[in-house]
This record gives sequence, C-alpha cells and structure tokens, in this order.
Amino acid sequence: MAVERADSSDLAGAPMSGGAARPVLAVSMGDPGGIGPEVLVKALADPALRRSAKFRVLGCASVMHAAAERAGIEPFWWTIRASAGLDEAALVHDVVLVDYEPLLNLRDPIYPAEASKLGGSLSFQFVEDAIALAKRPAHDPLHAHGIVTGPISKAAWALAGRGKYPGHTELLAVRFGVERVGMMFVGPKLRVILVTAHVPLMDIRNALTIGQVYDAIDLGHDACRHLGLARPRIAVCGLNPHAGEGGLLGDEEERLIAPAIELAQRHGIEVSGPHPGDTVFGAALAGKYDLVVAMYHDQGLIPVKLLFRDESVNVTVGLPSVRTSPDHGTAFDIAGKNIASEQSTASAIRLAVRMCEGVRRLGEANA
Amino acid sequence: MAVERADSSDLAGAPMSGGAARPVLAVSMGDPGGIGPEVLVKALADPALRRSAKFRVLGCASVMHAAAERAGIEPFWWTIRASAGLDEAALVHDVVLVDYEPLLNLRDPIYPAEASKLGGSLSFQFVEDAIALAKRPAHDPLHAHGIVTGPISKAAWALAGRGKYPGHTELLAVRFGVERVGMMFVGPKLRVILVTAHVPLMDIRNALTIGQVYDAIDLGHDACRHLGLARPRIAVCGLNPHAGEGGLLGDEEERLIAPAIELAQRHGIEVSGPHPGDTVFGAALAGKYDLVVAMYHDQGLIPVKLLFRDESVNVTVGLPSVRTSPDHGTAFDIAGKNIASEQSTASAIRLAVRMCEGVRRLGEANA
Repeated sequence: MAVERADSSDLAGAPMSGGAARPVLAVSMGDPGGIGPEVLVKALADPALRRSAKFRVLGCASVMHAAAERAGIEPFWWTIRASAGLDEAALVHDVVLVDYEPLLNLRDPIYPAEASKLGGSLSFQFVEDAIALAKRPAHDPLHAHGIVTGPISKAAWALAGRGKYPGHTELLAVRFGVERVGMMFVGPKLRVILVTAHVPLMDIRNALTIGQVYDAIDLGHDACRHLGLARPRIAVCGLNPHAGEGGLLGDEEERLIAPAIELAQRHGIEVSGPHPGDTVFGAALAGKYDLVVAMYHDQGLIPVKLLFRDESVNVTVGLPSVRTSPDHGTAFDIAGKNIASEQSTASAIRLAVRMCEGVRRLGEANA
Repeated sequence: MAVERADSSDLAGAPMSGGAARPVLAVSMGDPGGIGPEVLVKALADPALRRSAKFRVLGCASVMHAAAERAGIEPFWWTIRASAGLDEAALVHDVVLVDYEPLLNLRDPIYPAEASKLGGSLSFQFVEDAIALAKRPAHDPLHAHGIVTGPISKAAWALAGRGKYPGHTELLAVRFGVERVGMMFVGPKLRVILVTAHVPLMDIRNALTIGQVYDAIDLGHDACRHLGLARPRIAVCGLNPHAGEGGLLGDEEERLIAPAIELAQRHGIEVSGPHPGDTVFGAALAGKYDLVVAMYHDQGLIPVKLLFRDESVNVTVGLPSVRTSPDHGTAFDIAGKNIASEQSTASAIRLAVRMCEGVRRLGEANA
C-alpha cells in the first residue's frame, strides 16, 4: 500500500536480518558541555536499541557517568582508555566507550555549558576518530559501517582552531575525499533532501544548476534504496511560486529543474516535477511520494521542523559510509538538567542501523 | 492564556454581540462551471451560519438549484432578478440570491466545467457588483460590510476580456483605489501574511524593501485587531537560512527586515524577529505568536497548506471593506459531483462575520 511505504518505518527498529552480523556504529558523543552525552546515554539505555548494533562511543567517561546518574540509568557500557586504543578483546561488548579524559592530564575536568576550546577540541577529535574507524577496510575488525554524530558547537570548533570546518558535513566530505554530498532529513512520515543548504537565498541564482538538482535526485534515490525502497517515488519542488506557473513566475523550472528531472528519468529513476512547493509536501505526507527534493533550506526544513520538531534525523548522503545525526544542536541552555529528549538520537541510531543493513543487502545483491 | 489566543477561534462562530445588527455580506458565487455554487449552497445550508449575517449572493439561480438538488438541500434563499435590482423589500430575507441569468437571454444556459468566456464574464460581474455593494455608504440599506468571493478562473476572466486583472486581489485594490493591500491566510491555528506573493523567487531582490516589510506587519496587525486580538504578538521571518545567521548567510535581515521591525515597534506594535523560517511556524503553532509575517509565497504557504489544506481562508487586508475567500480554486475536475468540501467557504464566511464585527467594535471604541 502506498501510504505504508512512507510510514514511520525508517525510524522504527529494523528487523534484524537472519544471522547476519550486526552493523558496527562509531558514535561521537558531541560537545561534552552540551546535551549530547545525556541524549546518548538515555537513547542507548533501551536494551532493544543496544542489541540492534555494536557501538563504539568516542567520548568522556565522567560526563557519561554523570548523565547516567542524573537519569537514574545503570551504566551499560564497557570503558577503555583512548590511549590504549580499541583492541579486539573489548569488541565483544555491545557498547564500548573510548574515554578521552585520560589524555587530558586534568584532575576532574570541567566542561562549561557554552562554546569552549576544550569542548571544541574534544568533540572535533571524537568525529575525526569516528571517521577513522569508518575508513578502516571492511575486513578490519575495527571497521565501523556507520557514523552517528552527537551535537557539536561550531563556535567551539572555531575556538579550538577548527573553524575551517563549519560543521560535520564539510569535515566528513573532506576526510572521505568526496565532493558530491547531500543533506537529507528523515522524519517519521517525510523524507526531504536539499539541493542547496546554507546559501543566502538570493545567491541560489548562482548555486542552482542542472547538475546540482540532478545530484540531489540521484543521491536521494540511493539513500532511499539503502532504506529498503526498491523503487522510490521522488517529487522535485519548483523554485518559484506555483512552480513558476508555466514560466509566468520565473524560468528556473524550465531552464534547470525540468532538464535535471528528465536526465534522472533517463537514468531509470522514478521522479516527477517540478511541483509547487506549497502542495507537494502534503502529497508526500499522504503517501504519494517517498522523497521530496527541495531547492533551498527553508523550503525543505519548514515542513520537516513543523511536523516533527526533534523527531527528525539528519543524514549525510554521498559518503562511502552511512552517517546520521540528531536534528538538534548542543542546547547548552538545558544541558546537565536531564530534561533533553533522546528521541532524535534514538531515531538517528535506528536509521543508521537500517541504512547499514540496506547497504549490505544491496552489496550482496550486486555481488 | 497564550495558547488559547492562537486557537481555532478565528474560524469558529463569532459570538453575536448583544442586539447589534448582523453584518451584511456580499457573496460572489464564483465561476458557474466550478465548485463555487456547490460549496456555497452546502456552507449556507447550516442554519447557524445563515443566522450569523445577512447574505446577498450574486450568482445564477439554475446552478444554485442544481447544486442544492444534488446535495439534497432544500433551497433556503429568496431569489430576485439582477435586472430588478435589490430593493428594500427583499432585504428582510437572510439570504437573497441576485440571479443574473435573466440578463443572459439564453434558454437553459450551460456552463462548461472549464475556463469559458461565459463563466468568466459572469463571475467577473458578480465580483464587480459585490464591490459596488461594499462601496455604498454605510448608512445605505444596501451597504455590505464585507465581501466573500467564490473561486474564479483567471483563464476564464482572460477569455472574457478581463485578463488585465490576474485575480480578485488586483481588481479589489483598483476598485477601492487602494495601493497597500496584503494577502493573509488564516487557518484554524495559524495566521500568516505575505510580504511578497506572486513574484519569481529571484526577483524578491527587487521587491523586498523596508516599506514592503513594514506594510505587511502593519496590515497584519490591523487585521488581527479586527479579529479581536487587542495586542497581537507578531513574528517576522528572515529571508535567508537561519535568518541570515548574523550576516553570514545574507544581509537582507539587517538591511531590510530588522529596520522594518524597529519601525513597527516604534509605532507600538508588539513584533519580533527576524526569526528563522524553519522554526518560527512551530512556535506560532504552539501559541507563542498570533501572526507570522513571511517574506515570500512558499515560506508562508508551505506551513498553511501542509497543516490545514482546504480549511484555511484567504483574506485581503488593507481594503476599506472586509474580504475573505476560500483558499482553493474552481476545481473544474470535480465540479457538479457533489464531492467538494464546503469547509473553507464556511470558514471564510465565519471569518468575514467576525472581522465585520471587529471593525464595528473598533469603530465604536474610537467614536
């Protein structure tokens, strides 16, 4: 049934495939002063979620313990020192915490609930090392199939001298040596991928090309297949009001968007449009489409945030590794209060598991 | 309570104020070949709605009767011939249908369910005459306090030689001699006004000025007061992702939007922003704001259509008369099938009644 295809299944627990080994996820804890540690501890406190994968958490033991204590959660992880490195003995545990605090040479380190050099430097290193695990060859026992990143502060990265990377996506693209990456958002009932993201609206004029639109369609198509949709139905938004109303309200639909759609159709992708932005999301929500390709940030994010707020998951597509993250920031203002919702982190983990299994399934099918 | 202010009250029946006379609404039936007649008959079949105002419907008797028969509704209106003109004797009836068919000199006229010259010419005349009723002086017994317009076909208007008016809004502005009009959308839980509407997205560069942003805030503020909000809380969207992120992602927020907000604040309006487009609608929905000012079509219409589809009402603000309309078109494809929803038309009528009463209340307070 059409409606079921677009249903909550992406973020629900994936059925474990037969006797296949569980995927390994490298999880960066995020900024130690933010809500990252808390939402991670609370999400993984669910034994069913823990059983769905093997987790290598890169973080700080004292912060994780404090978060667990505040939440009344019995620590469920095995801790090793980052200096010791992951060894195979540790890998039998479902959740291994690689603790970076011994490297700090600080007695009782304090992580401020604001952008700090210490928080930036640690959270950057967690991501670097998570990427390193994902880049290990597939046969290596330390190889991670996917990365789940906790929230970082861009200002803290800048304080730590890492300001050249405005965020995870740019760092991931550079480290994996990939140019074509896309930002996708997956909510319980809607999937959206952006053609342009953090661009001033009036500069879209320069950023929007047939190739950019095509890439978003193509990357989104791949991601949907990793999510288990054999033949995803993709809808592409117009740029202008009423998708240009036949050229009366703008020509980007004819010049750039329609040619990209035709190109994707010739490559066998089931894609339609350009559709008016103000009606296409309702149609997707009603089950008519599996993915909407939005031209710019607010066009895609308004529906996602309005419908799902903290429930949606951010996915980087186009990398050789799976990568998801919760769709919220460090929320320094509520850090350490045990009031943050772990919903989005739990969803990000479930989605990563699902995509890792999808990647493997497709790989086996092609082998 | 904050949440209640943004509640469904706009579109709910307005409490009749004491012994005050009911407002008079001039209602244009819309294109006779579209769903306008059907949704009007079905909406006014509700006796409570009929009692909330006095209605002068400008339309075609045969189409109204056919719609009533298909819907199993006993005609509830008093019909007079347009050639005879409205006289005071007819005005005792709650619903008077001014029938334009006798003017046609056609036996059994047929109205095609598509853009036609006949449909365009009639539906244009209905609106013209509704405006004429609204323009009569307040003491004239034929004066209408508000206008509710049924859906018309722009293509039909063009076939009838009225193509210079792309829609109701432009015709209304010209006939009332008003330059500053705004498009506002009222849904059960969200009110949105647009700074720019039917402009190619990349041309916003030229259309967006401090004055345009200020006008939308000011007109929206007035409309909210007519809706009974003594001190509406208004949120203004940014243009760029993250509302420009402090100038990193565009400068229109600093150059144009913030100055307009400051100007409105100096005029005593409770207004804040620029807020990121992807989070402000959720905040409004949660009851934090009474009105959101959107910079362009899709930014404002994506949330309205996604949340309310056919339930929302289109309001023209800035006219000396109240004007509302259902937020849908002629829907020729389902015309004559008795399957169209009258929800939006009923809401448009309720909202017009409420605004007429608000205008009178404010007028009395200022007298």
